Amino acid sequence: MTSMTRPSGRAPDQLREVRIERAFTRHAEGSVLVSFGDTRVLCTASVENRVPGFLRGKGEGWVTAEYGMLPRSTNTRNDREAARGKQGGRTLEIQRLIGRTLRACVDRRALGERTITLDCDVLQADGGTRTAAITGAYVALVDAVRWLQSRKDIARDPIFGAVAAVSVGVYRGVPVLDLDYAEDSDCDTDMNVVMNDGGGFIELQGTAEGHAFRRDELDALLGLAERGIGELLAAQREALAR
Amino acid sequence: MTSMTRPSGRAPDQLREVRIERAFTRHAEGSVLVSFGDTRVLCTASVENRVPGFLRGKGEGWVTAEYGMLPRSTNTRNDREAARGKQGGRTLEIQRLIGRTLRACVDRRALGERTITLDCDVLQADGGTRTAAITGAYVALVDAVRWLQSRKDIARDPIFGAVAAVSVGVYRGVPVLDLDYAEDSDCDTDMNVVMNDGGGFIELQGTAEGHAFRRDELDALLGLAERGIGELLAAQREALAR
Amino acid sequence: MTSMTRPSGRAPDQLREVRIERAFTRHAEGSVLVSFGDTRVLCTASVENRVPGFLRGKGEGWVTAEYGMLPRSTNTRNDREAARGKQGGRTLEIQRLIGRTLRACVDRRALGERTITLDCDVLQADGGTRTAAITGAYVALVDAVRWLQSRKDIARDPIFGAVAAVSVGVYRGVPVLDLDYAEDSDCDTDMNVVMNDGGGFIELQGTAEGHAFRRDELDALLGLAERGIGELLAAQREALAR
Amino acid sequence: MTSMTRPSGRAPDQLREVRIERAFTRHAEGSVLVSFGDTRVLCTASVENRVPGFLRGKGEGWVTAEYGMLPRSTNTRNDREAARGKQGGRTLEIQRLIGRTLRACVDRRALGERTITLDCDVLQADGGTRTAAITGAYVALVDAVRWLQSRKDIARDPIFGAVAAVSVGVYRGVPVLDLDYAEDSDCDTDMNVVMNDGGGFIELQGTAEGHAFRRDELDALLGLAERGIGELLAAQREALAR
Amino acid sequence: MTSMTRPSGRAPDQLREVRIERAFTRHAEGSVLVSFGDTRVLCTASVENRVPGFLRGKGEGWVTAEYGMLPRSTNTRNDREAARGKQGGRTLEIQRLIGRTLRACVDRRALGERTITLDCDVLQADGGTRTAAITGAYVALVDAVRWLQSRKDIARDPIFGAVAAVSVGVYRGVPVLDLDYAEDSDCDTDMNVVMNDGGGFIELQGTAEGHAFRRDELDALLGLAERGIGELLAAQREALAR
Amino acid sequence: MTSMTRPSGRAPDQLREVRIERAFTRHAEGSVLVSFGDTRVLCTASVENRVPGFLRGKGEGWVTAEYGMLPRSTNTRNDREAARGKQGGRTLEIQRLIGRTLRACVDRRALGERTITLDCDVLQADGGTRTAAITGAYVALVDAVRWLQSRKDIARDPIFGAVAAVSVGVYRGVPVLDLDYAEDSDCDTDMNVVMNDGGGFIELQGTAEGHAFRRDELDALLGLAERGIGELLAAQREALAR
Repeated sequence: MTSMTRPSGRAPDQLREVRIERAFTRHAEGSVLVSFGDTRVLCTASVENRVPGFLRGKGEGWVTAEYGMLPRSTNTRNDREAARGKQGGRTLEIQRLIGRTLRACVDRRALGERTITLDCDVLQADGGTRTAAITGAYVALVDAVRWLQSRKDIARDPIFGAVAAVSVGVYRGVPVLDLDYAEDSDCDTDMNVVMNDGGGFIELQGTAEGHAFRRDELDALLGLAERGIGELLAAQREALAR
Repeated sequence: MTSMTRPSGRAPDQLREVRIERAFTRHAEGSVLVSFGDTRVLCTASVENRVPGFLRGKGEGWVTAEYGMLPRSTNTRNDREAARGKQGGRTLEIQRLIGRTLRACVDRRALGERTITLDCDVLQADGGTRTAAITGAYVALVDAVRWLQSRKDIARDPIFGAVAAVSVGVYRGVPVLDLDYAEDSDCDTDMNVVMNDGGGFIELQGTAEGHAFRRDELDALLGLAERGIGELLAAQREALAR
Repeated sequence: MTSMTRPSGRAPDQLREVRIERAFTRHAEGSVLVSFGDTRVLCTASVENRVPGFLRGKGEGWVTAEYGMLPRSTNTRNDREAARGKQGGRTLEIQRLIGRTLRACVDRRALGERTITLDCDVLQADGGTRTAAITGAYVALVDAVRWLQSRKDIARDPIFGAVAAVSVGVYRGVPVLDLDYAEDSDCDTDMNVVMNDGGGFIELQGTAEGHAFRRDELDALLGLAERGIGELLAAQREALAR
Repeated sequence: MTSMTRPSGRAPDQLREVRIERAFTRHAEGSVLVSFGDTRVLCTASVENRVPGFLRGKGEGWVTAEYGMLPRSTNTRNDREAARGKQGGRTLEIQRLIGRTLRACVDRRALGERTITLDCDVLQADGGTRTAAITGAYVALVDAVRWLQSRKDIARDPIFGAVAAVSVGVYRGVPVLDLDYAEDSDCDTDMNVVMNDGGGFIELQGTAEGHAFRRDELDALLGLAERGIGELLAAQREALAR
Repeated sequence: MTSMTRPSGRAPDQLREVRIERAFTRHAEGSVLVSFGDTRVLCTASVENRVPGFLRGKGEGWVTAEYGMLPRSTNTRNDREAARGKQGGRTLEIQRLIGRTLRACVDRRALGERTITLDCDVLQADGGTRTAAITGAYVALVDAVRWLQSRKDIARDPIFGAVAAVSVGVYRGVPVLDLDYAEDSDCDTDMNVVMNDGGGFIELQGTAEGHAFRRDELDALLGLAERGIGELLAAQREALAR
Repeated sequence: MTSMTRPSGRAPDQLREVRIERAFTRHAEGSVLVSFGDTRVLCTASVENRVPGFLRGKGEGWVTAEYGMLPRSTNTRNDREAARGKQGGRTLEIQRLIGRTLRACVDRRALGERTITLDCDVLQADGGTRTAAITGAYVALVDAVRWLQSRKDIARDPIFGAVAAVSVGVYRGVPVLDLDYAEDSDCDTDMNVVMNDGGGFIELQGTAEGHAFRRDELDALLGLAERGIGELLAAQREALAR
């Protein structure tokens, strides 16, 4: 380990402060404001009694996600995607990722012919919005399922295990956990890791634009991610127990 | 006055609780979370050193607004406009209204060749989102102008007067102030009123779908609006003094 | 009253010449060319035996409107909205207004599960296109309903009362009726007023960009509007009697 | 020739009544309402002092066209293209045809770096809208050029020759001139022919959906077209002489 | 005939080398790579057991086409239409032409309620892509119909006759057959001709931008086209016999 | 290792047959048809002497990619994205991946202010289209750079190293290399791996929808990928040496 200092002063294996506030808004069946430091994402879970066309009549449910950033959640204002008339490639990529990883912990037959939509809207961005979104959306999803159970709409719990996500990267030669924006924009290699509470990998997305990473760097990054996700899973459990 | 009771138990001339939180997010030059009861709108003001094409080289600035509702800010989920690929008529109508009414208190020459964009995003809706947005966006606008002044970017204050807005309507035969969603959806006549602190009208939008309103009803509604806007202007002043 | 002279030489309370030609084109169930001076709008009413999804099976009809300007109806050519790929905010706002105000005089149960679409296309613009459109579309709507009655498709008349619209504004300090383009573009305050033949207000849209209007100005404007709408309602009756 | 009777009672080689009204609206540099029987198309010519990007700085002008049908110009209402968010294939095909054929009589260097846009909007359709549009747009184009000449904006006349168009087809085995809607929809073969006043062909578009046409039929159709276009060119000359 | 030499050295009435490769890709029911010299178009025919809305329940099938050019099929790269968000006018015009001309040889009742979609994608362009597409798509269509027959899905052959297409034009004063890109871009008059194997014309599209063509030129062009199409029909027959 | 048999009969660590044909079409500066078994992708590299706005004047070039599937490259026909009016999320995700990974082997300063666009169009799909696209696009990129060098447009070679990609996955419990469609659609875990010829990882995208993968499975998959990419890099070298 070198004498490198992170912009935030954190240790290389230290998460930012994680906060998970449930029932942040009142209409949605699940509504969670998740914060990873200054990154704040509002995750709502909406239940609807219908499924997309390709699932109709099959006795299965669906879990999907949409993602957006408020125009001034970032340092300089971004165009509003609704005004531009389309969602950008990054947005589509992230919302596909969120939906896919949360479906990995849902028994869709137990859910029945229902759709749960997870809307993840970034109120303030400071790096790691997609990993915060996955981590928060999981809690919103559980709340929506509990709501269904409280109404006796479903017989058994469709959720198995838990899912959380974190980013890792090589910053100035040192593998670090949970990159903030200052690190992310000054870092050649970063990886988003989604895991479940059984220690299995749900999704790995590692990118090296310019500097390729070696197998030993990959191993170090995966170790950091496992550690960070353990803490995030604990934070989810604690929030859900409140 | 009849024995009519408002769903919320408020008196006919009573506003919902108004809260105005400044610096709600950290990137924008002005960032205000405004609440009219359960209606919560995040209003950010972003300063950019450029103007739209039709103003280039004229030595004047521009103030404009965009409006959006998070998909689950409402009781049932609405499609995300970015995913649908266009902003609906209601959205365009509201953001045009917000921009127009705030331009009414800005000396655009004093602003210089700058654009201030007011993004009004509804986190939670319970009626009156456009009036809350105008009222909150005014405060965000003032904060953005103060930021410009603190940097000595502008010589004199481009803002003259203050602007606030409220809705009024005839609910079960009784003129009432600041309609919430339960009243709004059960009410034939409603009017949005925007006024300045000189007692002048900036905008009146009264609609009677089904039941036309008489001149005396109009007079009663305007009286309620004047009273409510007086309180909202006071709330803005108090927030800006904090 | 000052010595102000209107560009057209009209008295402050004088409408432009109003002409209402029925059966202007031959395919539509109602087809009216309405002229307010040089403003000419073709209003057609089309009857279809279906309703939008949200009304299906409810035994009610629907009345809706679409608005457009021919690209060279104006002094300089505007882009064709079909070529740009979307309707602008002003267009959506106006067509929502036309539809809403005409629904205010229709008993939708008496109409049955039918849609009447009012297409208002501006052939030549000289200010006041939306008020001319409402005034003309009402006549086209009546013709379409008479056509339904003549075929015995509906049992009783779904139209109650009549609806007309006019603009008023403060031009060089003087309240004036029925603004033409020269006045409209040189006038801080203007208001569009829609009323029925019972003297009730259907819609008020007053805007002051820059100069706020006082309560006494508002009263004077409403008085002018009431007078002008009386004349327009008479012109409609006369046209329908021909 | 058989005993076939055309729905309109016309002789096989008889045009519908042609009317060409100049100065139909007042803003455009050229404005013509052309009628081929019940087909009525408003053709405006708009002059702008700029050219498309691919011509910038080349000292040449451009002539282009746009085409639209009012939603209820036809027997049953068509969707408004602006509301659907795009122009259909038929529309694009027709407006490309109109622009291309009118460019065939314009010396674009003599026009200078200007664009003339011909907007052809169908007020009422009864077959042959594209041929009426070309025939009327030519007159509007001449009026716009005369306007440029009257202002001394251009030194020499950029228009050489004249252009007109007509449809021909085989109806119930008989070649006929200038199809109306009743014939067009009951006719396997039809051809749109555009010619200049030198007797040259500018464009031929013959389509046989289902029944292929023989060379002798083609010859008969071309003969009819030559005759009809001669009459249309005369009508244009007469209108321009008024 | 003058001493004009074609850029390719071909005789005026000489086609480019024609190749028709069936089963070029493996998923489609018909898949043909057609080459007219350096113009190469992949034509696939896809069978689906449904018809467009306007044909539902009528016992008829549909044949339609889509056309596209790979971005670098041409000399300089063109924008990808999927990225631009719409198909251009030229594309729509061509795909409408392909669909229309192939429907001219199909008995849609014998096809039953099925749609055959012909996708014509240009891999390499050197002039004449639309005529190559029609000629190749016919072979793909026959293969798709044979596939239906081999499965006993249809009782009788819905295809009557054959359809092929070629371009002709006046190049440096001489009528020539099957224009390549060098000729096409240096040629005022060109015509696309679609014929069937009974010698009938299915479609004629002749365009003279700048130089109008005389009747005798038209006759010469039609003669060349008849000759070329005879050879193309033979090439189709030979390919289908392999 | 179990007795599992791959649908294709391949050994678990066996690639499909790889073919790389250069100069497949003639217009592009680089044009490669790459085949991974039945997956065939046409990759063209187009050089343009301009850069996107954000790079203008910085003395750097850009490398970007676009991806598309021909509608019938797949087993059942997919809608054409150009006709649907937008590129789907999967398309955007893949083209972002291709561009990003190829930029990882380009010195953009050495390229100068030029853009190289890699168009990857799938002619036939059988799984692994994105990995084939990256592997083929690298060869097209090298050809385009050689073309620039042959014209002396650039002084030194901007390409350092080579880039290739392959998919790996767990099929019926066994880690396998280079999944075809039959395996891909019956496999819970798959990973796309992009590496350079220095043995570094450029991109890792591992997805487990339903079944999470363990660290030892990940290690086995990475080992397979390293082996397969070694063979692909050899195939690229061999093709470029021809």
